[in-house]
Amino acid sequence: MMKKLYEGKAKILYSTDNAEVLLTHFKDDATAFNAQKRGTIAQKGKMNCQITVALFQWLESKGIPTHLIEQSADDEILVKRVKIIPIEVVVRNIAAGSLCRQTGLEEGHELPFPLVEYYLKNDELGDPLLTCDRLLILELATEEQLKQLQTLALSINQHLQELFASCQITLVDFKLEFGIDTQGQILLADEISPDTCRLWDQTQSDPERRVMDKDRFRRDLGQVETAYQQVQKRIVDRLASYEA
Amino acid sequence: MMKKLYEGKAKILYSTDNAEVLLTHFKDDATAFNAQKRGTIAQKGKMNCQITVALFQWLESKGIPTHLIEQSADDEILVKRVKIIPIEVVVRNIAAGSLCRQTGLEEGHELPFPLVEYYLKNDELGDPLLTCDRLLILELATEEQLKQLQTLALSINQHLQELFASCQITLVDFKLEFGIDTQGQILLADEISPDTCRLWDQTQSDPERRVMDKDRFRRDLGQVETAYQQVQKRIVDRLASYEA
Ligand SMILES: Nc1ncnc2c1ncn2[C@@H]1O[C@H](COP(=O)(O)OP(=O)(O)O)[C@@H](O)[C@H]1O
Ligand SMILES: Nc1ncnc2c1ncn2[C@@H]1O[C@H](COP(=O)(O)OP(=O)(O)O)[C@@H](O)[C@H]1O
Ligand SMILES: [Mg+2]
Ligand SMILES: [Mg+2]
Repeated sequence: MMKKLYEGKAKILYSTDNAEVLLTHFKDDATAFNAQKRGTIAQKGKMNCQITVALFQWLESKGIPTHLIEQSADDEILVKRVKIIPIEVVVRNIAAGSLCRQTGLEEGHELPFPLVEYYLKNDELGDPLLTCDRLLILELATEEQLKQLQTLALSINQHLQELFASCQITLVDFKLEFGIDTQGQILLADEISPDTCRLWDQTQSDPERRVMDKDRFRRDLGQVETAYQQVQKRIVDRLASYEA
Repeated sequence: MMKKLYEGKAKILYSTDNAEVLLTHFKDDATAFNAQKRGTIAQKGKMNCQITVALFQWLESKGIPTHLIEQSADDEILVKRVKIIPIEVVVRNIAAGSLCRQTGLEEGHELPFPLVEYYLKNDELGDPLLTCDRLLILELATEEQLKQLQTLALSINQHLQELFASCQITLVDFKLEFGIDTQGQILLADEISPDTCRLWDQTQSDPERRVMDKDRFRRDLGQVETAYQQVQKRIVDRLASYEA
């Protein structure tokens, strides 16, 4: 018997007959600016589900442990239930978004090394940036876990950069969530999609045209569905060509 | 010949006949919340000058290199001219202020270890919190300098905690500025005063009464001058007793 456990901004979690397995339903709802802006992106649930499955399978094939079990419908996946670490792990290759607003760095500035950042997953506090020391003081993770998160985040970044580059997409930055499974292992959880990444089309030079992610929705650039479709198509085609 | 070089929120800098020496004049002006709140605290210039001189001499006696040369008037000091590193180094022993607002920690929570934090000294950006990686990417300091800043900050914290504790004052947190002198050495610069520290009177348990610092001005608690006077008197008396 399925029971709704949690409805978030972009997904709904259901319990399943197996206590260790959850069903994640991807919604078409879109929110931005800590849910002050709300809307719908047609077909987003299916597209983000498909993209997440493709990327998580790619990462699993590279040795990254993830929560993904299998896709159970166009907009549904079965996942291993984990205890989510309440941190948004953000990896940045190019300066954009809050990094620019907070530091004065220009959007598009190539960072000298991939920046792994931690934000408290807390909508009331506005997902504040955490230093490593703050993270330890808040007891959100141990020093050992923090090291593991950083290693995983950097490794995921390398594998995703490789895949996106082969799709002529620049991986500007992205957000990850991790959880602890019943064996105490850290698994990559949640989703990776144009909702949670900044992706720039390398075949476009115009700074608005190149945007292939939720920034189209945030900044009212239009053609949101088309952009998500393009991301989905390029990734799926690329992975099919690898399998062939 | 003296020339006004810079007028800040709390002090005025003048050049002197010696290119390597500046004169710092301490003003009675008080500002808070990034200068949105403005006022005057009677005698503050003289009190903060006296307190800064006492604390910097105490730290020099403990081996901390500072910019202080000598006091030249009640509200004036001569200092070595440095290139200020544009970072506010904050040391926290007890949670208060922006740490609480940003993380949800309760005011008064004793931190498990002294927290050294870095904020960009930039009023336009609102002095944002920096992670170590952001600080390096912005090229505000080298990795080597960052290590030195942390070591100095922790050592200053220990020496100040010792002195304040002997005055029955709890050193909750404080802000430091450092600069590079003509020999390339890092010196403690600027000031240390009730404008730049949170100080709680250990003889008072009431959370408003115990406040002995600029929070009285920020939060309109009244008796601001009296609090600054008390800090000055206790430190001066204590240091006199050490000398005797
Ligand atoms: N494997 C998992 N086990 C338990 N919770 C998960 C798992 N994967 C993701 N989650 C959580 O499920 C929720 C997904 O819904 P979402 O709409 O993204 O929520 P939110 O609005 O909180 O971001 C998130 O809170 C996420 O942390
Ligand atoms: N030894 C020094 N050499 C050069 N500049 C200094 C020195 N000590 C402090 N300063 C700078 O002098 C200014 C002091 O004035 P203040 O009123 O505190 O300015 P602000 O409003 O910028 O904080 C600060 O900008 C500080 O960084
Ligand atoms: Mg989410
Ligand atoms: Mg100042």
